[in-house]
Amino acid sequence: MQTLKTWVSVNENCDFSIYNIPFGIYSDKDVKHHVCSAIGDYIIDLFELESRDVFDMDRSVFDNQYLNSFIELGKPTTNKIRNKIIELLCDENSFLKTDTAFFNKVFKKQSDVKMLLPVKIGDYTDFYSSIDHATNIGTMIRDPKNALMPNWKHLPVGYHGRSSSICVSGHSFYRPKGQQKPADSDQPVFGPTKLLDIELETAFIIGKATHMGDSVSTANAGDYIFGMVLFNDWSARDIQTWEYVPLGPFLAKNFASTVSPWIVTLEALEPFRVKGYVQNPPLLPYLQYKGDRNLDIKLDVYLKPQNGEENLICSSNYKYMYYTMEQQLAHHTVNGCNINVGDVMASGTISGPQPSEYGSMMELTWRGTKPITLKDGSERKFVNDNDTVTIRGYCKKDNVRVGFGNCTATLLPAK
Amino acid sequence: MQTLKTWVSVNENCDFSIYNIPFGIYSDKDVKHHVCSAIGDYIIDLFELESRDVFDMDRSVFDNQYLNSFIELGKPTTNKIRNKIIELLCDENSFLKTDTAFFNKVFKKQSDVKMLLPVKIGDYTDFYSSIDHATNIGTMIRDPKNALMPNWKHLPVGYHGRSSSICVSGHSFYRPKGQQKPADSDQPVFGPTKLLDIELETAFIIGKATHMGDSVSTANAGDYIFGMVLFNDWSARDIQTWEYVPLGPFLAKNFASTVSPWIVTLEALEPFRVKGYVQNPPLLPYLQYKGDRNLDIKLDVYLKPQNGEENLICSSNYKYMYYTMEQQLAHHTVNGCNINVGDVMASGTISGPQPSEYGSMMELTWRGTKPITLKDGSERKFVNDNDTVTIRGYCKKDNVRVGFGNCTATLLPAK
Repeated sequence: MQTLKTWVSVNENCDFSIYNIPFGIYSDKDVKHHVCSAIGDYIIDLFELESRDVFDMDRSVFDNQYLNSFIELGKPTTNKIRNKIIELLCDENSFLKTDTAFFNKVFKKQSDVKMLLPVKIGDYTDFYSSIDHATNIGTMIRDPKNALMPNWKHLPVGYHGRSSSICVSGHSFYRPKGQQKPADSDQPVFGPTKLLDIELETAFIIGKATHMGDSVSTANAGDYIFGMVLFNDWSARDIQTWEYVPLGPFLAKNFASTVSPWIVTLEALEPFRVKGYVQNPPLLPYLQYKGDRNLDIKLDVYLKPQNGEENLICSSNYKYMYYTMEQQLAHHTVNGCNINVGDVMASGTISGPQPSEYGSMMELTWRGTKPITLKDGSERKFVNDNDTVTIRGYCKKDNVRVGFGNCTATLLPAK
Repeated sequence: MQTLKTWVSVNENCDFSIYNIPFGIYSDKDVKHHVCSAIGDYIIDLFELESRDVFDMDRSVFDNQYLNSFIELGKPTTNKIRNKIIELLCDENSFLKTDTAFFNKVFKKQSDVKMLLPVKIGDYTDFYSSIDHATNIGTMIRDPKNALMPNWKHLPVGYHGRSSSICVSGHSFYRPKGQQKPADSDQPVFGPTKLLDIELETAFIIGKATHMGDSVSTANAGDYIFGMVLFNDWSARDIQTWEYVPLGPFLAKNFASTVSPWIVTLEALEPFRVKGYVQNPPLLPYLQYKGDRNLDIKLDVYLKPQNGEENLICSSNYKYMYYTMEQQLAHHTVNGCNINVGDVMASGTISGPQPSEYGSMMELTWRGTKPITLKDGSERKFVNDNDTVTIRGYCKKDNVRVGFGNCTATLLPAK
């Protein structure tokens, strides 16, 4: 990794180092929506920055509610822009540093702005690609001896989710109501879910469209992935258990999902590649790949009761994924399904092998049989009303840190 | 039903009677995309019509690639527009009739224009609400004695589908490839699907958005439904069988779906309401409804081999739906899931009780065990390469006919 040094002061535990330079959309009292990047505690307003023609392009692309038009410029252009930002932030003689009035126009404290949903999402897909998660769930609700379904090790199982209810970090939502069938009853009952769960996930954002009939190979998949975000796939377990046979999850998941606002580019993540799982039985040729294509991303989940302290409830890692993003995308398109810029493809819950690494309350409390005790002495089997859950994630290697910021949301009582 | 008489010549078997007046988007050599309606063999260009201020509104809403902005005007406005069109088409002294030059600007032969996808689709949901279909499939692939899953009579089972690959009538698509597991093998194989199927469906188009946390009651659901289209939910049965457990259909369905171009308004369909199924066991209160809320829509499916004749392979009816659209929408939103204008909610395959009324090849040929013989002597178990499948649908009562036009697509050989 090339060593970079910026003239902006960046704390060593900050997600937004000079090696990151992610993209997002912000708003404040003066700005409706501009494309921005981040360094340290600041956002960088790229619309304002381009008033000096640093990227030599039409600046209107930075005046947008969503990143889609920016992403559609293509990786050669967006990477050039990212590299130019890095260059300016490393150049001690840059006008950005020396012209204080201009600095103050372009740089704003992250704490003073509101981050918006980064992309207009067309379709949203959720995979189920963590072997520990799939094994835990299969063990609990089906058959411990055959926890994984026969297809699981042959393809990255996935399903389509609801894009309308994906919100950016910082939102709140109501505890959903729906049908549940108590174990001791023949008939379903109706009411607020009793088993509101989190799912610790990441997602990748599609950066290049295909036409119907086209397939993307594992080797070329990186060209179609713009970057990654953190993702919380909120789930109502009692609604899910009753509704999901035979066509999959529906109302148990479509009431709310949360994404982090910063898209960390695939390029920023490349230094943190690690070896993937040994996939045995061997996969069909279209799913095979070469090289180190997994990623070492530390993922933590915090639960904060109303007016209480944050409690770390899970520490997992993206490297526990059995299937890579490239395999997920190759599988998704092998039938000719077309993809669009801004589509979201989530990982599925990412659990590690240790109980402290489980990515859902369902697993952490083993279906509620082993409650978690919080610092304030209260217990949690699932998420309580007014709890706030935050996912954080970052890569770290040789003192270089690249992180995602917060993916946070608060559960309100049922409406 | 009030008797209407138009000065436009309309064949008695035409779907586009004066009682219909649907909405769509067309394009031709002079027009990129205008909102239009239909009467007889003509489309009516509403952008051109509004040059005479007949609706007293900003005509730019009719110059759009999609109907979404038009639909967002709200039912009071769109119904007023529809009623005004009916009035003009019934008025023998209308300038539309007397001013031939203007008539020729506004009216174009349907055969001379290209109909486009009517709405920008946000989310697409597919239900599974025909009791005969669910019973047939359950009988074939699970357990004849317990064909319906325990939840089926308590809620309209549904799942999220892929919106990117929904195309307007007239398109073609490639036979999808994917994993299948032959019964005599331990391992999956890869190749073009051998069991490419149709699913005879209708869909309703959402006409009014809700916020997260809101629910729509069965009594108010009609306010949120703009109208209906025909829908073919193409399915690859061998891919489906292998992939769908436990999270539902994915690559088996997301390669292509076909919609008809004309949205027939809910108001045009009202005269054809009929009594719904007796729902027993009784449903939870949020799914109960009053009145005749089913619809008598005759639905036919035709299969045409390359260079061959059309063969009627199925005659079904929307009235065989166990759950109504209003129940589907109430269920979809009971957990607070938000909906947007242009969302598509499909019925699921609509089969009737008689074998000739089955809405898929899977059922018509009973998993390929009873092939269909076509007029040219050839047999079909599923759909062959270069076959064209067309769904047609219409309501008829007291010589009043309201129909949907064609929902047609051609299967190309695997790429």
